[in-house]
Amino acid sequence: MNLSELPLASWARRLAPSAIQDMLQNITKPGVYSLALGLPAAELFPKEGMGEAAARVLAEQSGALQYSATLQPLREHIVAMMAKRGVRCSPQQVFLTTGAQQGMNLLARLMLEPGQTVMLEDRVYSGFQQVLDPFQAKRLAVRRDSRTGLDLDGMEAVLKAGERPAFLYTMSDGHNPLGTSLSVAERERLVKLARDYRMPIIEDDAYGFLHYEDTVVPPLRALDEQWVYYVGSFSKILAPALRVGWVVVPEPMVFRLATVKESSDIDTATFTQRIILSFLDSGRLEGHLERLRREYRLRRDTLLGALEKHMPKGATWTRPSSGMFVWAELPEGSDTTALLSRALETEKVAFLPGQAFSVQGGRSAAHCMRLNFSNCEPARIEEAVARLGRVLAAGS
Amino acid sequence: MNLSELPLASWARRLAPSAIQDMLQNITKPGVYSLALGLPAAELFPKEGMGEAAARVLAEQSGALQYSATLQPLREHIVAMMAKRGVRCSPQQVFLTTGAQQGMNLLARLMLEPGQTVMLEDRVYSGFQQVLDPFQAKRLAVRRDSRTGLDLDGMEAVLKAGERPAFLYTMSDGHNPLGTSLSVAERERLVKLARDYRMPIIEDDAYGFLHYEDTVVPPLRALDEQWVYYVGSFSKILAPALRVGWVVVPEPMVFRLATVKESSDIDTATFTQRIILSFLDSGRLEGHLERLRREYRLRRDTLLGALEKHMPKGATWTRPSSGMFVWAELPEGSDTTALLSRALETEKVAFLPGQAFSVQGGRSAAHCMRLNFSNCEPARIEEAVARLGRVLAAGS
Repeated sequence: MNLSELPLASWARRLAPSAIQDMLQNITKPGVYSLALGLPAAELFPKEGMGEAAARVLAEQSGALQYSATLQPLREHIVAMMAKRGVRCSPQQVFLTTGAQQGMNLLARLMLEPGQTVMLEDRVYSGFQQVLDPFQAKRLAVRRDSRTGLDLDGMEAVLKAGERPAFLYTMSDGHNPLGTSLSVAERERLVKLARDYRMPIIEDDAYGFLHYEDTVVPPLRALDEQWVYYVGSFSKILAPALRVGWVVVPEPMVFRLATVKESSDIDTATFTQRIILSFLDSGRLEGHLERLRREYRLRRDTLLGALEKHMPKGATWTRPSSGMFVWAELPEGSDTTALLSRALETEKVAFLPGQAFSVQGGRSAAHCMRLNFSNCEPARIEEAVARLGRVLAAGS
Repeated sequence: MNLSELPLASWARRLAPSAIQDMLQNITKPGVYSLALGLPAAELFPKEGMGEAAARVLAEQSGALQYSATLQPLREHIVAMMAKRGVRCSPQQVFLTTGAQQGMNLLARLMLEPGQTVMLEDRVYSGFQQVLDPFQAKRLAVRRDSRTGLDLDGMEAVLKAGERPAFLYTMSDGHNPLGTSLSVAERERLVKLARDYRMPIIEDDAYGFLHYEDTVVPPLRALDEQWVYYVGSFSKILAPALRVGWVVVPEPMVFRLATVKESSDIDTATFTQRIILSFLDSGRLEGHLERLRREYRLRRDTLLGALEKHMPKGATWTRPSSGMFVWAELPEGSDTTALLSRALETEKVAFLPGQAFSVQGGRSAAHCMRLNFSNCEPARIEEAVARLGRVLAAGS
């Protein structure tokens, strides 16, 4: 079929199978030591608890598979979970979504006029940029440095100069891809900027429940309930294939979210929401989270130790207190996209090049790489980094 | 919180909690004899088969809850199901979605330029109009009469006059809300118009597998694979809460669908897709479908018989060969929205007023009502129609 015959909108005509998709195919080949993707550890999924929950739901709930209204008790569980994150909210402020990605997508659809400007960090989750593409939103990148943090001075200058973005998208904890978290002072100033300049913040907290230190700082939503729109997810703490997330928003947003969700995939209680509710009712979440934190802390420490041993002089990397990622920077001028090809070819080891997290294809992260520590067992992490070290030692 | 403080796009600011939502709350109150909603019969869901499938998936598939690529074997099952509908397609033309609603939403996003015109039937599934709202698409309504069928002359005249809609949305079988199906001649002429005027058709076949007569006519997709974009669903034939549907499209559309789905809710294999795959592998679908058809045929006949007995003179209604709905028309000038209030109040019986299926609030269906026959058991259908008859006899 001739492509020119396809009845596509102009922006959709320009879509191309992405180079990253091709790369992913190589990365996920069997035998590859992969620190590339943001996958949780499948062997830690609470499969038994999920199986029991699924059986209970089917046995006890006659409407388990039917269209039905939102699960009020699941919203109440989420309120309790948010309280453990240091956030006070009501069930009426919680809206259930098909994963965090849908939460962001629905919020962007409600908040963004086509062609309007959005503020992003200059290292940013690529899936959020995908959300913006169909709106052809202008992107205003604020520096988020792996050492010095978020450039709040720069942000304030831009706002002072009159920019009024539809919203800022950020991650306060376990940032993807940097692995860093905002300091308390950064959080306070950021929320003050949001209030002063009436700039809503979409806070993506997909990794916030995975924290590894004694001191845990609450997310931005704990500081402001008017300007912070919180996005949460069960994907990283229970399982991605369940596709359940939530947002915490001002109550008048909820019926609007229901309307756009209705048109997206029907705003109905799903079987997997019921499974999660039953799992939470069984009181197993806290123990499961502790197990995850213990194991991921070990994997993080293994990765950091291996980097210490195998990375060349001149490389630096972050030390995450939350999440799944370490961000490493090679000397300026390095090209991690080219490096990945060599790494796969010579040592069968994979990471994601910094490039993948740049705003609209900028080159400023070309010397960086994202390393995941949640997916591989410690011994495999050790081996992967040793291999990566050999690739780097072989020179560029 | 002051509404003017909410950071909303202009179209989202105009959203209001819908009158239909209020109405639905009354309709779904316990004790109401409801022929209103398009719900499958919960007591016919294959809960046992689903439970066994869920247990098998968790026991046998280590990646069952993880992010993973599309389930090729499920696409192959769908190819086989499509063959039973009389459609030849390849697994490469099948794309899995979060229900039919997402299929329509993703197709509209790929095909529609903002502000462009879309062709609809003048009685139309309200969820499809919701898809169009954010695009502010212009709607061009073509008459679909419950007796004389689709006004193909009118459609041709409009196309001949130069209109070039982004697509036509239609249902060939078990039309929601009319309950009618297109004749073979209508299908052939419609597909010819699509070809001649290069107008894509989104064919919503959510009800097509629920057919009750000996002769089954294949959907439009069987007649053309270039211009017909087919949308299917497991919601009505297995269970809505699983949220799994599919589209059958020209192969070059598939990676584009993957891109927009990725940004919507991540294009990953879901737990419920795996449950369905395991259920299909067990070979139970055909028997389940036969049971559904047998039971729904009985319910349809019960409804038609009860209408014969209880409807006043001057009322007419459709005799569906597929789907879940009968469309009834009272004499012109009747107002079924007002009637619904009285029916709920005096006889606790519910239906959906024709108004709910009008294009952009038009009044041409104000004397009509949609009656569902899938959700209630036969005795309850009898009683509901007897009550409706009393409401109508009491006069308007």
